[in-house]
Amino acid sequence: MVHNFNAGPSILPKEVFQEASEAILNFNNMGLSILEIGHRTDAFQSVMDEAQSLTRELMNLNAGKEVLFLHGGASTQFFQVPMNLLDEKSGAAYLDCGVWGTKAIKEAKLYGNVEVVASSKDRNYSYIPKGYSIPDKASYFHYTTNNTVEGSQMHAIPETDIPLVADMSSDILSTDMDFNRFALIYAGAQKNIGAAGVNVVITDQEILGKVSRKLPAMMDYREHIKNGSMLNTPPVFAVYVCMLTLRWLKKIGGVKAIQKLNEKKAALLYDTLDQLPLFTPTVAKEDRSLMNAVFTMADADLEKAFLATCKANGMYGVKGHRSVGGFRISMYNALPYESVEAVTDLMKDFANKNG
Amino acid sequence: MVHNFNAGPSILPKEVFQEASEAILNFNNMGLSILEIGHRTDAFQSVMDEAQSLTRELMNLNAGKEVLFLHGGASTQFFQVPMNLLDEKSGAAYLDCGVWGTKAIKEAKLYGNVEVVASSKDRNYSYIPKGYSIPDKASYFHYTTNNTVEGSQMHAIPETDIPLVADMSSDILSTDMDFNRFALIYAGAQKNIGAAGVNVVITDQEILGKVSRKLPAMMDYREHIKNGSMLNTPPVFAVYVCMLTLRWLKKIGGVKAIQKLNEKKAALLYDTLDQLPLFTPTVAKEDRSLMNAVFTMADADLEKAFLATCKANGMYGVKGHRSVGGFRISMYNALPYESVEAVTDLMKDFANKNG
Repeated sequence: MVHNFNAGPSILPKEVFQEASEAILNFNNMGLSILEIGHRTDAFQSVMDEAQSLTRELMNLNAGKEVLFLHGGASTQFFQVPMNLLDEKSGAAYLDCGVWGTKAIKEAKLYGNVEVVASSKDRNYSYIPKGYSIPDKASYFHYTTNNTVEGSQMHAIPETDIPLVADMSSDILSTDMDFNRFALIYAGAQKNIGAAGVNVVITDQEILGKVSRKLPAMMDYREHIKNGSMLNTPPVFAVYVCMLTLRWLKKIGGVKAIQKLNEKKAALLYDTLDQLPLFTPTVAKEDRSLMNAVFTMADADLEKAFLATCKANGMYGVKGHRSVGGFRISMYNALPYESVEAVTDLMKDFANKNG
Repeated sequence: MVHNFNAGPSILPKEVFQEASEAILNFNNMGLSILEIGHRTDAFQSVMDEAQSLTRELMNLNAGKEVLFLHGGASTQFFQVPMNLLDEKSGAAYLDCGVWGTKAIKEAKLYGNVEVVASSKDRNYSYIPKGYSIPDKASYFHYTTNNTVEGSQMHAIPETDIPLVADMSSDILSTDMDFNRFALIYAGAQKNIGAAGVNVVITDQEILGKVSRKLPAMMDYREHIKNGSMLNTPPVFAVYVCMLTLRWLKKIGGVKAIQKLNEKKAALLYDTLDQLPLFTPTVAKEDRSLMNAVFTMADADLEKAFLATCKANGMYGVKGHRSVGGFRISMYNALPYESVEAVTDLMKDFANKNG
């Protein structure tokens, strides 16, 4: 039995793997692989249409929202967002909560003034800043909903009247919220939506076209909207895996249902960590992520021993990010509760023997 | 029996589909899918390393060449190339041989002066211009080696002392040539190299860093080189499919061997077209593409009937691009000779009945 706690690319539902594997040999009984069909065929158009409409349905999006599946990962969005939205006269406001937010800020600065409204860098991004104010003249306010590396998560949508832009790469579709409050959402697919190599971008038409700079066609959201997310050959297989994963999420009850499971998994993991003095969660209690639990041990030798124990028990992806150290257990949508049971049992056992 | 003449995404070797399908269920006997492993794992690092080294080996590249597998398709390269290379003082020179070259020119103009040295637009891109001169002060000279839509191909590398940049999306690795003569080569993978959603970029270090504009990290080739083509999460599965396809190409004898097969396939197809007055190839004889054969029929009703006959015989992707009309038979590396025999037999039969 293998348990996959990878931070991304990460676990997807078993039935998605099964169907994707079959489609590579014979897609839709066409006698062709999904890898060798034209993207302008009816067969692939149906895939794109269903991926878009499932996204709408699962996120309960207003009719005015556009759903795109674009090349690249969130790192591409770090510059594509300001390229499209950052008006040089008004600038943009950013919240700095972790390495990904920091990278987004760096790219935005290429396009104009960026006001960092708050940062948790002072304590190695171990909490989410509160009590900051968002300037009301900025083009938009950008934040990262979940900090994959540091293990913190925003548990409420900030109040502001300016357009909200969120990087939801590592927690999209994991918790129910009013997704319509965002002017633009982007997410690299390789955590909760599908395979690496595609971005989901959800945007309002009305925020686009307000900057004066000229945009390359591939970077212009309006061009992608106009072309139904097929301005060029899309990452066909990655979009197909998104569609399968979205189908699975709908089948098991949608975002509300998965939220319950995610809360149950996180409760078991954090309760165990809190009960075992051997392990120290690094993030402020109220800001802990339901997706990525980060923790350390006081003793470096014990850390090595615990990592070896995890490995010996078929547990992948437990090692923390090099910038934080320690451990990281990622509990994305597709991770079964049993995997969290397995790792918490292992923790208790390890603590008994070494505590 | 199915024959896949799709122009891209297009046919790949059967054994690639088989291995890719298995890796989605169980990659390297890890008990994990290729879709759920981290890109920083040894397992994926080996995939990236092998994809890069096979590219080097098959193209006989000098040590100074860098091989990258980047997000997006050629359309992304249309602006990434000038962003990195087009010096505003010197401009760039482009050859206009088809819809893809035209798009590349449009994007390049966003970054500086573009001199179009020659164009075959006057005759609907049905030939390759000759006898043009390339300015010796331009930052680079850009051309499309094979025009997928129109069915023409450059059969020699232009002579110039300025850096050569080529879009080889639809004929890379199909014909032996001195790939080291190019300062930069790019190719969307979804024809001869692998699955949609990844670009192969081969570049010299020395041509980079000469422009003054600031580049977003994801657009800066130097950043990708520095990070071993893993600046961010790469399109993992698409890179894996490239590796499998490159392995297959090496196994069957490499570029020289596939060139012979490609010439044999193209000879059979064009000879048949030339012998049957019912069909009219649209491209000048000396400029015909080994990859995409484009032809029309004088009678629109007969065109419909021929298309229906192809469909009834399990032939996919025969319809021409909407900008050219008629038919297009794509004969990429992985297309078996038997498929060309099948379609030429069908043509002869159809001509007998309707000629």
